[in-house]
Amino acid sequence: MALPKQSEDFPGWYQEVVKQAGLAESSLARGTMVIKPYGFAIWERIQRAFDDRIKATGHENVYFPLLIPHKLLEREAQHVEGFAPEVAVVTHAGGEELEEPLFIRPTSETIFWATYAKWVQSYRDLPLLYNQWCNVVRWEKRPRLFLRTTEFLWQEGHTAHETSEEAIAEARKILLDVYRDAAETVLGLPVRVGRKSESERFAGAVETFCMEGLMRDSKALQAGTSHYLGQNFSKAYGVKFLGRDNSEQFAEATSWGVSTRLVGGVIMTHGDDRGLRLPPLLAPIQVVIVPIYKSDDERALVLDATKRLVGALGDVRVKVDDREGFRPGFKYNEWELKGVPIRLEIGPKDLAAGQVTLARRDNGNKAPVPEAGVVQRVTELLDEIQRTLYEQAAAFRDEHTFEPKDYDEFKTLLTEPGGFLVAGWCGDRSCEDRVKAETKATIRYLPLDPEPVQGACIVCGRPATERATFAIAY
Amino acid sequence: MALPKQSEDFPGWYQEVVKQAGLAESSLARGTMVIKPYGFAIWERIQRAFDDRIKATGHENVYFPLLIPHKLLEREAQHVEGFAPEVAVVTHAGGEELEEPLFIRPTSETIFWATYAKWVQSYRDLPLLYNQWCNVVRWEKRPRLFLRTTEFLWQEGHTAHETSEEAIAEARKILLDVYRDAAETVLGLPVRVGRKSESERFAGAVETFCMEGLMRDSKALQAGTSHYLGQNFSKAYGVKFLGRDNSEQFAEATSWGVSTRLVGGVIMTHGDDRGLRLPPLLAPIQVVIVPIYKSDDERALVLDATKRLVGALGDVRVKVDDREGFRPGFKYNEWELKGVPIRLEIGPKDLAAGQVTLARRDNGNKAPVPEAGVVQRVTELLDEIQRTLYEQAAAFRDEHTFEPKDYDEFKTLLTEPGGFLVAGWCGDRSCEDRVKAETKATIRYLPLDPEPVQGACIVCGRPATERATFAIAY
Repeated sequence: MALPKQSEDFPGWYQEVVKQAGLAESSLARGTMVIKPYGFAIWERIQRAFDDRIKATGHENVYFPLLIPHKLLEREAQHVEGFAPEVAVVTHAGGEELEEPLFIRPTSETIFWATYAKWVQSYRDLPLLYNQWCNVVRWEKRPRLFLRTTEFLWQEGHTAHETSEEAIAEARKILLDVYRDAAETVLGLPVRVGRKSESERFAGAVETFCMEGLMRDSKALQAGTSHYLGQNFSKAYGVKFLGRDNSEQFAEATSWGVSTRLVGGVIMTHGDDRGLRLPPLLAPIQVVIVPIYKSDDERALVLDATKRLVGALGDVRVKVDDREGFRPGFKYNEWELKGVPIRLEIGPKDLAAGQVTLARRDNGNKAPVPEAGVVQRVTELLDEIQRTLYEQAAAFRDEHTFEPKDYDEFKTLLTEPGGFLVAGWCGDRSCEDRVKAETKATIRYLPLDPEPVQGACIVCGRPATERATFAIAY
Repeated sequence: MALPKQSEDFPGWYQEVVKQAGLAESSLARGTMVIKPYGFAIWERIQRAFDDRIKATGHENVYFPLLIPHKLLEREAQHVEGFAPEVAVVTHAGGEELEEPLFIRPTSETIFWATYAKWVQSYRDLPLLYNQWCNVVRWEKRPRLFLRTTEFLWQEGHTAHETSEEAIAEARKILLDVYRDAAETVLGLPVRVGRKSESERFAGAVETFCMEGLMRDSKALQAGTSHYLGQNFSKAYGVKFLGRDNSEQFAEATSWGVSTRLVGGVIMTHGDDRGLRLPPLLAPIQVVIVPIYKSDDERALVLDATKRLVGALGDVRVKVDDREGFRPGFKYNEWELKGVPIRLEIGPKDLAAGQVTLARRDNGNKAPVPEAGVVQRVTELLDEIQRTLYEQAAAFRDEHTFEPKDYDEFKTLLTEPGGFLVAGWCGDRSCEDRVKAETKATIRYLPLDPEPVQGACIVCGRPATERATFAIAY
């Protein structure tokens, strides 16, 4: 079935790509999803990219329980306010009603910090640099595959430090050296990094840092957040230590996460009207080979050449589509839909000419390559496609970044063509709320480091205190 | 704190090793655990060993939801009987009581097969060869870290096939080529494979295949199971397909799993009175280097030599313990407790003599090695220690495998020295139950393929129909 055009029905296009490319489907319990093999293979490669960097920056993986005594949630006031409405609660187990209900983690600050109270006595016990990969449950009102599901998979880092300087540096290192680097280098997602405004902060955070991408429908996607939590959780859970000066101090905290939502980000950043386009470093299949033949003799020759080519391609992730009973054109469409970066076609004519036909998914170009040069060409092209997808996305983002001169232009640009709108903001919640109410746009980020600002608030005209970047977001 | 001796207090020894080696601890909700960094690093390597083999045999990873509508549990009669008493139930979410309660998966046959009903129409859609790594919850009455916890981590494979022959071959392939191979090759666990008796089968299985290890306290540990489920689930969930002969057929099923329990198996198979002993292929740290120095001059020289050595060791997983303020003897104890296979000590005397001191964890031997030969010696020794640990465990198991001549000897041997008792069995449930009631021993496995049997049932004296292997098990 043909995909809807992105320009005509972006949500419909997204839904059909997720379905037809075999990435995921809705499951039975409301808002839950089944991640199908191809979607999960993409997630496994995302995990690898982030996990490598999390470990390279000195963090270790752990596993904390799914189920948490309900009373633990109540300790940090902002946190409970933010998450209590979303939690799922276990009231019965082992055939009996539980004396105390358990909640399913929507995020794990509560149980990490209740446990850290046992682990931290002295400054010598710090820092704690731990991360876990797990599932979390948040009761979403309007679920959407990958972007917002009742259960999702993610990693959540929870670190404890001696000083606020160290904790802030940690939260920023994760944002820049782990998250942005993995997103840009491997996923090919150009992201803007910054701080959240108070209203968009994580419940319980002193400061939330974020990375934001721009999707091809000009909407923003929050792709990862890293929080400086100050002493909010150490005070709520009693994580005290004897400092270097022999005084009792509360630990300083960070937490940070990226989730299966990134799969949605990859789809909506790179995809086109033919389906997915996967950056080679992320693609579970980098090269698909389609052998073409009619007679049995041709079949033997072509499959033999295919086998040699697979061997020569070594570490490249290659799939040979030798399914019988499907026409080459059908196979081409399927692998284009699935976003495989390079397709090689090998038929009798190619063999006779000592060549294979190479098709690029990113731009659709198709040309013969001499057999002897295929490996080198593929290797070069994988690099080139990785770079091209990133650059196209960055160019799109830059072309959709505007500095409206007044609130009218702000509203016009937001409607058409949409994108990131950079504008002065007085710092007042009421102006932020008014923009949201009137346009659905929110402040996606403020500069990572507060900067001196000139000019006026785009809404009220009073002097601006921040340069805010607004967008309509997922 | 000194560990209890294995021979005097094996459960106490286990508990202290888990604690002191930093593997895990109990968490707040009853029966749940926190897997700490070192314990999780071991689990990550176990995952790698099994996941590589699961993928190499043609399976793909997926992810199915944690929460399942309660009514789905009721479809397969034996399955509900087995699992309903253990499930945890979510009754409230998003601040409201749910119209229909959800249960947390204790295993995922229900949701996989409810979903497979949508995915399978024709024999062309088969086989489905899927696996997931996830958490499951079973309300355990007597939890024990790693061995039996309310929540545990595992992989569960769920496959659908055209014929029973194919499904049985799948269940056996997983047992032999995936589970046994990973357990023996990487974890160094010698395992016996076989069939379960009817009373020990998975709830809903036609046949349960298993691998069983023998721990150093002479108790057996079920280390992995692979089930042939016949058409029980396809009939319960309506997974029908149009066969090659155009007739409507029900799919044939398997499921199979190994869990974090394997960490417990590794501890209890290889550990000794000094703590863990990790097989090199599994060990997160294969070599620990302890630099020894007093003066600053010595420090510079020794750390320089250490750095060169780390570089020379290349891909070997090396940890340098250069913590200040701890005596070498303290460090030796700690790394012995943590089971690191090889320790290298480098001090000024070693440097002067052009050597390093090498200590093996498996047998405690300690000897100098010329500096030029260290890399080769380490490489050889890692292989040798891997082999030695396996062989020691296999020898222990063989020395603790008996063929008692009558039920009296059976009971005597079971008490002292304990182990696997191989005996004739009439096949009657009442004899199996009597053994369990009187001795706590259960049938751990029957031969993988039924064999002709001579002799009498060890309990009732009637003709034996099976050669059963009994043991007291975890």
